[in-house]
Amino acid sequence: MLRTPLVAAVAVASFTMSGLASAQQSDLEQRLADLEARVAAAEARADAAEARASSVEETVEASETRLDEVARQASGEEGFSFNAYARSGLLIGEDGKSISGSPYITPAGGLGGAVGRLGNEPDTYAEAILNYRQTYSNGTKALYRTMIADGVSTSNDWTADESNLNVRQVYVELSDLPSFTGAFENASIWAGKRFDRDNFDIHWLDSDFIFLAGTGGGIYDVQLADSWKANFSLYGRSYTDFDVVSEVDPNDNDTDSFIYTVNNYFGNVQWMINGLSAADNDTRDLGNGSTAADSGIHTMLAYHGDSFFGLGEGNFKAALLHGQGLGAEVKGLGSDGDLTEDATATRIGLYGTTYLAPKWRIAPSVFAETSQDRYDEGDDYQWAGLNVRLANELTENFEMQYEASYQYMDLDQGASGNAADGNYTKYTIAPTFKPQVGGFWQRPEIRVFTSYTDWDDELNDYASDDAFGEDGFTGGQWSFGVQTEVWF
Amino acid sequence: MLRTPLVAAVAVASFTMSGLASAQQSDLEQRLADLEARVAAAEARADAAEARASSVEETVEASETRLDEVARQASGEEGFSFNAYARSGLLIGEDGKSISGSPYITPAGGLGGAVGRLGNEPDTYAEAILNYRQTYSNGTKALYRTMIADGVSTSNDWTADESNLNVRQVYVELSDLPSFTGAFENASIWAGKRFDRDNFDIHWLDSDFIFLAGTGGGIYDVQLADSWKANFSLYGRSYTDFDVVSEVDPNDNDTDSFIYTVNNYFGNVQWMINGLSAADNDTRDLGNGSTAADSGIHTMLAYHGDSFFGLGEGNFKAALLHGQGLGAEVKGLGSDGDLTEDATATRIGLYGTTYLAPKWRIAPSVFAETSQDRYDEGDDYQWAGLNVRLANELTENFEMQYEASYQYMDLDQGASGNAADGNYTKYTIAPTFKPQVGGFWQRPEIRVFTSYTDWDDELNDYASDDAFGEDGFTGGQWSFGVQTEVWF
Amino acid sequence: MLRTPLVAAVAVASFTMSGLASAQQSDLEQRLADLEARVAAAEARADAAEARASSVEETVEASETRLDEVARQASGEEGFSFNAYARSGLLIGEDGKSISGSPYITPAGGLGGAVGRLGNEPDTYAEAILNYRQTYSNGTKALYRTMIADGVSTSNDWTADESNLNVRQVYVELSDLPSFTGAFENASIWAGKRFDRDNFDIHWLDSDFIFLAGTGGGIYDVQLADSWKANFSLYGRSYTDFDVVSEVDPNDNDTDSFIYTVNNYFGNVQWMINGLSAADNDTRDLGNGSTAADSGIHTMLAYHGDSFFGLGEGNFKAALLHGQGLGAEVKGLGSDGDLTEDATATRIGLYGTTYLAPKWRIAPSVFAETSQDRYDEGDDYQWAGLNVRLANELTENFEMQYEASYQYMDLDQGASGNAADGNYTKYTIAPTFKPQVGGFWQRPEIRVFTSYTDWDDELNDYASDDAFGEDGFTGGQWSFGVQTEVWF
Repeated sequence: MLRTPLVAAVAVASFTMSGLASAQQSDLEQRLADLEARVAAAEARADAAEARASSVEETVEASETRLDEVARQASGEEGFSFNAYARSGLLIGEDGKSISGSPYITPAGGLGGAVGRLGNEPDTYAEAILNYRQTYSNGTKALYRTMIADGVSTSNDWTADESNLNVRQVYVELSDLPSFTGAFENASIWAGKRFDRDNFDIHWLDSDFIFLAGTGGGIYDVQLADSWKANFSLYGRSYTDFDVVSEVDPNDNDTDSFIYTVNNYFGNVQWMINGLSAADNDTRDLGNGSTAADSGIHTMLAYHGDSFFGLGEGNFKAALLHGQGLGAEVKGLGSDGDLTEDATATRIGLYGTTYLAPKWRIAPSVFAETSQDRYDEGDDYQWAGLNVRLANELTENFEMQYEASYQYMDLDQGASGNAADGNYTKYTIAPTFKPQVGGFWQRPEIRVFTSYTDWDDELNDYASDDAFGEDGFTGGQWSFGVQTEVWF
Repeated sequence: MLRTPLVAAVAVASFTMSGLASAQQSDLEQRLADLEARVAAAEARADAAEARASSVEETVEASETRLDEVARQASGEEGFSFNAYARSGLLIGEDGKSISGSPYITPAGGLGGAVGRLGNEPDTYAEAILNYRQTYSNGTKALYRTMIADGVSTSNDWTADESNLNVRQVYVELSDLPSFTGAFENASIWAGKRFDRDNFDIHWLDSDFIFLAGTGGGIYDVQLADSWKANFSLYGRSYTDFDVVSEVDPNDNDTDSFIYTVNNYFGNVQWMINGLSAADNDTRDLGNGSTAADSGIHTMLAYHGDSFFGLGEGNFKAALLHGQGLGAEVKGLGSDGDLTEDATATRIGLYGTTYLAPKWRIAPSVFAETSQDRYDEGDDYQWAGLNVRLANELTENFEMQYEASYQYMDLDQGASGNAADGNYTKYTIAPTFKPQVGGFWQRPEIRVFTSYTDWDDELNDYASDDAFGEDGFTGGQWSFGVQTEVWF
Repeated sequence: MLRTPLVAAVAVASFTMSGLASAQQSDLEQRLADLEARVAAAEARADAAEARASSVEETVEASETRLDEVARQASGEEGFSFNAYARSGLLIGEDGKSISGSPYITPAGGLGGAVGRLGNEPDTYAEAILNYRQTYSNGTKALYRTMIADGVSTSNDWTADESNLNVRQVYVELSDLPSFTGAFENASIWAGKRFDRDNFDIHWLDSDFIFLAGTGGGIYDVQLADSWKANFSLYGRSYTDFDVVSEVDPNDNDTDSFIYTVNNYFGNVQWMINGLSAADNDTRDLGNGSTAADSGIHTMLAYHGDSFFGLGEGNFKAALLHGQGLGAEVKGLGSDGDLTEDATATRIGLYGTTYLAPKWRIAPSVFAETSQDRYDEGDDYQWAGLNVRLANELTENFEMQYEASYQYMDLDQGASGNAADGNYTKYTIAPTFKPQVGGFWQRPEIRVFTSYTDWDDELNDYASDDAFGEDGFTGGQWSFGVQTEVWF
C-alpha cells in the first residue's frame, strides 16, 4: 500500500538538474533526486510504522487495564468466589458394617476432649462458602459471605430424611473505609451471623482452640498502640428450650447468651477476654439441685509461633484457657447453658509442625482440661491427650501417614452421677494420595486407612448416650476405610 | 537482525560508476550508491516494522475479541453469576433477651398490614440466587435461575434443627428468539417456579405491592400497540391440606389455585388484571358456617413515577388494588384459601424517595386496606399506616437513619370472633455504616439501632396466635440491636 | 516528535564537500550529505519503530499468556464452575387440580419399570452442582464436586415444610498424576460420595441403565491391555432401620451394603461385574417368612453404538443386566435391602436416536424385566415397555414433540400378596420452545403439553400405596401442563 504514494512521489519530483555538462553528472543528479524522494517516502513509512506501533501500544495498555479488571473478577478478588471444606468416606468395622467413630468418640468427647481424627471419621461433612466482594470508587471494600453446611453419617446419595443442611454464616464485613482514621485506619467492621475471623484450631483433633460464633457485630484490628491491636465484638447465641424451675413463668424460656469479646494482639502473643451473660438462665432446672449460671468470664492467653517451638523450621501454637460460670465451656463460647454458677475449667492446647528429616513431617499436639462443679456441684472432670501425626512423602503424589493418639480421662459426675477413669488409644496407618506432597496443609487428600482402637472396659459403662459399650463397640478392634478431605 | 541484509545489500551493490574523471565525482558516485543501498535497506526495515506493527495489531484485535468474551464470562453476563439478598442481626429487649419483632408484628400484620422494618427484625434471612446465562449462535438468550433461601430466628451458627432452607425459584427464561416477530419481537417466555419479574415493593415495610409467585409459565413484553405492552401468565399454587365439609370425599383435598394474569403497561401506568380459580376449594370447612371461595378476581392500577410525586427529584410508586373472593388477598395472589366467596378487599399503597436537602434523604410511605366478609360473613377489617424513613449522610461511610412508623387498625372478626381497635407506633434511630452513602438503595449496610415501640393495650388480647400480649410483650418498650442488610 | 532530532541531525551534519569546482557539484555534494544524514535518521526511526513494535509484541505475548489463564478461570476450566439439571412445571387434570404423574406411576414403577416422562411430571426437581478445579505445577489435576438437590411437588414458592434439599455428592477426583505410570498413566482416582462417572440413562424414561452411587472410593481408566480399560471401585450404601427377626439383637440394625465393581471397556463394549454384600441383612424380617439376602452378584453387558442401530446416523445404547440376591435390583445397585436370597432379575434396555427426515427426529426405546422370588419366595414380576419420542422442528426456536408410551405388566406378589396384569398407555403432544432446535440433547426447553393416559382397571386394585385407583385416578383421562427442563 505504501508503494503507490512512493511511486507517485517519484513521478511528481521536479527534475531540476541543470548546468552539469556531463551525462554522468546529470544521471547522478537524477539518481539523487530519485533517492531524495525515496528517502522522504521511507521517512513517512517509518513514521507510519512508529505511529502504528504507538497506537497499538495504547490499545494494549488499555487492554491490559481491562484485563486486570477481568482477572480480578475471574479470580474472585472482585465479585463471586467459592470456598469449601469437605470430608467424605467410609468407616467400617471388622464385621463389615459401619462402625462408630469421631474425634469426640470418647466419654471425654462430650466435654471437648478430642482425640486424633485420622481413620476415625465416618461422616460426610461439607461446607460450601459463597463470597461476593465489591470495591467501591472511594476505596471501601465490602465482603458478603454465606456458608451452607451439611453433615450426615449415611452412605446413601439421597439424604433428604437425614439432611442437616443449614446456613451457618451470613455476614457483611467492610474494610478500607476512608472515613476511618487514626486507630481505626486499618479497622474493619462486620455484622451478621459468622464464625469469628480469628478462630484457630488443632486440625488433627478437629478441635478449635476457640470457636466463637453466632450472630452479632464487631470491629477488627483497632490499633490501640504501636504493637497492640485489638478486636471488639458482641455475639449472641440461643439456648434451645429447657425446663425451668417451677416458680418461674414456663413461657419465659427462650434465653439467649451474649458474649462480649476483647481480643488483644501484641506481636505473636494473643490475649482474649470474654464476658458472658444469659438473663434468666438461672431459672433453668438442671435436675440435680445445682443452680445454672447466668453469667461467666473467660480468658485465653495464646502464642502463635513461627518456628517449631524454637527448635527448627515449622510453626507452633499454644494456648491456656480458663473460664468460670458460662465461661467454663472454654472452646464453644456461650454454647452451653447447663453449666453451674460455680463451674470452672482450665484447658491447655498446643501443637507444632516441622520436618524431622527430608520427606518426614511430624505434627505432635497436646490437649488437656480440668473442670469442676461443671454440671453439678461436686463433679470433677480431668482429661489429657497426646496425638502425633507423622507423614512420609514417598513420591510427589503419595505419602504414608501415621497417627498415634492417646487420651487419659478421669470423669466424676458427682453425687448424682457416674464416675470412670481410663485410657483410650488409637493407631492409624493411612496410605494417602494428593496432588502435591509437601506439607500438612496441602489438600485435597484421598486416603485409605486402617486403625486399631482400644480403651479400658470401665469406660464402656460410664454413659448411656455415647457409643462406648453400645452394639458391641467395646474396644480392641480394627476398622478400615477410605476418605477424602479437601479445603480451598 | 536487519543489519545483516543491509550489509549484504551493500556488498552486492554493483559498482557501475563510469566515465567521471574526477576522484571527487567517483567518490560522490560511490557515496550515492552506498546510500541507495542503505535507503533500500531502510525501506525494507520500515516495511518490516510496519508489518510487525500490523501483525501485532491483528493479534491485539483478536485478543480484544477474546477478552470481550472472557469479560462476559468473568462478569457473569455469560455463564454463571451470583445474586443475594440477606439480613442478619440481633433484636434484644430491655431484659437482655431476644424480643419479638417483624414488620408484620401487629394484629393487622396477619392481614398484610406491615409497619416499618428498621430496628424491628430479629431474624437471619438469606437468599442465594444462582444464575446461568447462555447466548446462542442464532442470538437467542437463555437464563436459568435457581434461588435457595432460609430464614431462622435463632442466633446460633448451626441451625439444622431450625433450618427452613428451601428452593424458592427454578425457572428458565428465553429472550431474543429469532422466530419471534411482530408483536412478539421483544417478548420473552418462561416456565418453572419463580417470583414474577414485575413484582415491586415498599422496601421499608418489607411488603410487595404485588407478590405473584408459584409454578407455571408465561410471556413478557408483548407489544400490543405502540404504547401498550403486556405480560400474560399462568401461575399455580398449592393449598396445604385442610378440613373439608363432611359430605365430600376427605381424600379429595389437595386443592390448587391458579392465577391467570394480564399485566398491561402504558408508559408509567400499569394495569394488572387477575382471575383466580381453585377447584373444590368451596368444600373447605372454614369452621364458621361461611363458604370458602373457589374463584376470585383481582386488579391493580399502579403508577411508576420518575420524580418525587412531581415535587422534586426522586421517584414514587402508587397503587390501588382491589380483589374479591380468592382475589381478596390482594398482595400474595392465590396464596390464601381461607377467603370466603364474598370476601372483598381494597388496598392503597404508595411511597416516594427524595433529598429534602443535601445529605438529607426522606422516604415516606402510606399503606392501608379495608376488607369485609374476609374469613367469615360479617367480619370487617380496616388498617392504615404511615411510615417515614429519614437519613442524614454524615461522612461518605456513615449516616444516621431514623424511622417513625404508625398504624391504626380496627379489626372485627364478626359473630364468632374477637374485635379490637387501636394504634401502634415505633420510633427507631440507627447509626449506619455503608461502603458509600448516597441513596436508599445502596447496600450493604451495617447498623446498630434502638427502637421504642408502643401500642394500645386492647390489641394485646385480640389474637392468641400473635406475639402481642405474650411473654410480657405488651408495648411501651425499648429494644436494641445490630444488623446487616445486603443485596446485589 | 521525531522531526526535531532529524532537523538537528541535518543541522549538525558537517559540510565536507571539497574540490569540486562547479557549484552544481558542490550543491550535489551538499544534497548528498543532507540525504545521508536524513537516511541515518530514517534508519534510526525505522529501528525505533521496529523496537517499539517488538516491545509491544512481547507485551502482547505476555498479555496473551495471562489472558489464557484468566480465560481458564472465567470459563471454569480452572477454579469454580456451575452445572445444573432442573425441571419445573404444572401437571393438571381435567378437574382443574393437580394430578398424579411420574415415569414411575404404574404398579411396575416400584420395580423400576419406567414409562415415558413427557407430559407426565408434576414436580420441581433441581440439582445445583458446584465444581472447583485446580491444576498443580506438577501437572496433577484435582476436581472437587458437590451437588445439592431438591424435589417437591407443591407449586408454592416457599417450601420449607416440604423441602427435600440435601447434599447428593461430595467427592474429590485426581487425574494426570505424574507418579502414575504404565497401566495407570491415564488413570484417575477418587473418594467421597458420588454418582459414578459412567452411569448412563434412557433419558425419555428418566431411568438410568445403571445407577451406581454412594460413598466410597475407586480408580478409573486403568489400561489393562491395548483395547481393555477398566474401573475398580467400592461403594457403600446404608439401609434405613428395619425390623429384625426376634432372636437377633434389635440394636444391631444399621446394616450397610457394599458394592464391589469392576467395569470393563473393550471399544464400544462394556462389561460390568458387581459383587454385593450386606453383613447381617439376613436378620431382616421380611414379614413373609422368606430370608433376606446378605449378598448378591450383578452383571451388565452393554453396547454404546455410534449409529442408529447400524441403520443410519445417530446413536444407540443397549444393555442386558442380570442380578441375583442383593444384585436383583439391577439399576440402583445395593439400594434395596428387601430382596430375598433367591431373588433374580434380568433386564433389557435399549434406545436409539436418529433423523427420520430433515426436521423429524425419532427416539424409540425398549425397557423390560423379569424378576422372580424378589421380595417373597414364589413372587413373579414381568414388565415390558415401548416408548417413542418424536420431534418435528418447525422453526429454529420451536418444535412439536410427540410421545407414545406403552407398558405391559404381569405382577404376582406370591402367596401372601396381590396379583394383577394389564396395560398402560400414554399419548402426549407438546409444543416446545428452545433456544436452538437440532437434537434430543438440546436444552433448555419450555413446553406446554396435553396427555391422554389410560390403563386396565385391574391395575387400580393392585397396590394401596401407589396412585393408581386413588382419588379418582382411574385411567382414561386427559392432563395438561407447562414445564421447563434444563441442563448444562
